[in-house]
Amino acid sequence: MQLVVTMDTLVENQHFFPNANPYDLGYKSVAVNLSDLAAMGAEPRWLTLSLTLPDINHDWLRAFSEGCFALANRFNLSLIGGDISKGPVSITVQAHGLVPAGKFVKRDTAGIGDLIYVTGCLGAAGFALKQIKEGIQDNIDFRDESECLHRPQPRVEAGLILREYITSMIDVSDGLIIDLGHILELSNVGAEIMLKSLPMTENLAALQNETAWEIALTSGDDYELCFTVPEKLDQTVIRKIEAFCPLTHIGQITGDNRLTLMKPNGEEWNCTTSGYQHF
Amino acid sequence: MQLVVTMDTLVENQHFFPNANPYDLGYKSVAVNLSDLAAMGAEPRWLTLSLTLPDINHDWLRAFSEGCFALANRFNLSLIGGDISKGPVSITVQAHGLVPAGKFVKRDTAGIGDLIYVTGCLGAAGFALKQIKEGIQDNIDFRDESECLHRPQPRVEAGLILREYITSMIDVSDGLIIDLGHILELSNVGAEIMLKSLPMTENLAALQNETAWEIALTSGDDYELCFTVPEKLDQTVIRKIEAFCPLTHIGQITGDNRLTLMKPNGEEWNCTTSGYQHF
Repeated sequence: MQLVVTMDTLVENQHFFPNANPYDLGYKSVAVNLSDLAAMGAEPRWLTLSLTLPDINHDWLRAFSEGCFALANRFNLSLIGGDISKGPVSITVQAHGLVPAGKFVKRDTAGIGDLIYVTGCLGAAGFALKQIKEGIQDNIDFRDESECLHRPQPRVEAGLILREYITSMIDVSDGLIIDLGHILELSNVGAEIMLKSLPMTENLAALQNETAWEIALTSGDDYELCFTVPEKLDQTVIRKIEAFCPLTHIGQITGDNRLTLMKPNGEEWNCTTSGYQHF
Repeated sequence: MQLVVTMDTLVENQHFFPNANPYDLGYKSVAVNLSDLAAMGAEPRWLTLSLTLPDINHDWLRAFSEGCFALANRFNLSLIGGDISKGPVSITVQAHGLVPAGKFVKRDTAGIGDLIYVTGCLGAAGFALKQIKEGIQDNIDFRDESECLHRPQPRVEAGLILREYITSMIDVSDGLIIDLGHILELSNVGAEIMLKSLPMTENLAALQNETAWEIALTSGDDYELCFTVPEKLDQTVIRKIEAFCPLTHIGQITGDNRLTLMKPNGEEWNCTTSGYQHF
């Protein structure tokens, strides 16, 4: 087996609001790391956690722990160590996974003609964040999107199945344009995405087309898998994955070294934004 | 081999001053993690780094990287990944090491009658911090202590040699009383420390006795190794270790489940403080 590690930090005011629900924070800080392991086709095994807090609040810590372990227990992960410090709220998790030697999925191996798929929906977390920023609190009308924002589902099982069939994979944390862009750049290829195929929640799909496409392609925080495969996935494989999450064919790898977004009418669309910027 | 991991976070205003030298910060953020690996008798192999910064300052980043790699290169360590986020300055490093199966050194295995040793000097970093807090800037008069505070030497080589001979070990990051206290509590034993044997720099030893003892025992940030051994170390072993750092016998493990500090006149001394408190 080969050891795979990934480390992600969530910082108050940058990745979450100051009054964020501590259960959700615990859950999400584990989820975003498991999503990175999933994108390599790795089986998660252990976690470490460094927690920085302005003070010790036992209720907060209890809820945070419950959130962490809700997800850690589902995958039978141990929290094996870490650190605790005083300071502005910040959460760093490192996840450790195993993958059979040579089987880990890379980003620089997409081939011209490969089909491009994504799991789940794109833009759901971004839609929920937009609602919250516009002062519309979580409610039943966008419960699905709110769940995606606060408790993203790392596609661990899908990653484990897919690693046998695919040529490259990444998780969509900064938005599809940026993250698929990493695969394109590293593989020295281009891609054509069919905008009408982007999987969206009903609420997002109900928005004006260009608004919906922009949210789906650039808002990030999705933690869905985007991968490339030399030919259409076999129905047996699709059924195995769809036991865990939806799967959508959204485009194809091309040889022209750019990302082309095709509107339903066959015209090209220019997206004016790119995605989540770390700075 | 067994994999050993450790994670330490340094937070601005808590672990370092806002105007801290970025080279020193890079160096120290790696050093404190290697010190933890040294205390387990592990050979360091890889690092991950999560860096949170309010903005991108290329000069700062260059100096920080130079500090990290000054130490990483000495031990032939790769920085294999990490994260970067916007926010209040915070540095989390995880170090990964290897140790032959079953050879890693634990904290719950000190035996009654074992001798207690420490590497290097105690309280040097604390002395330097005290000078800085009293407004005395770094100068030639406490250059040694300032070096201990800003660029602590992780005792990696000593840990690798010692793992063959010792019963327990810890690194002194929160002060000897607290850190030796972890060994005592976990091993269900006590200890007697001879205050006259505490290794100190000349500047620290020149202070009034009780002030010097308190700094040596409680100020933390030393990153020296404290370990227990069933009988006096062989001269050959001592010479091997002293090629890297001084070694001092400071006391003995006892059966009475408390830490006793013995003054040179044979009386017991009560230290009124304990050590670094994370909160």
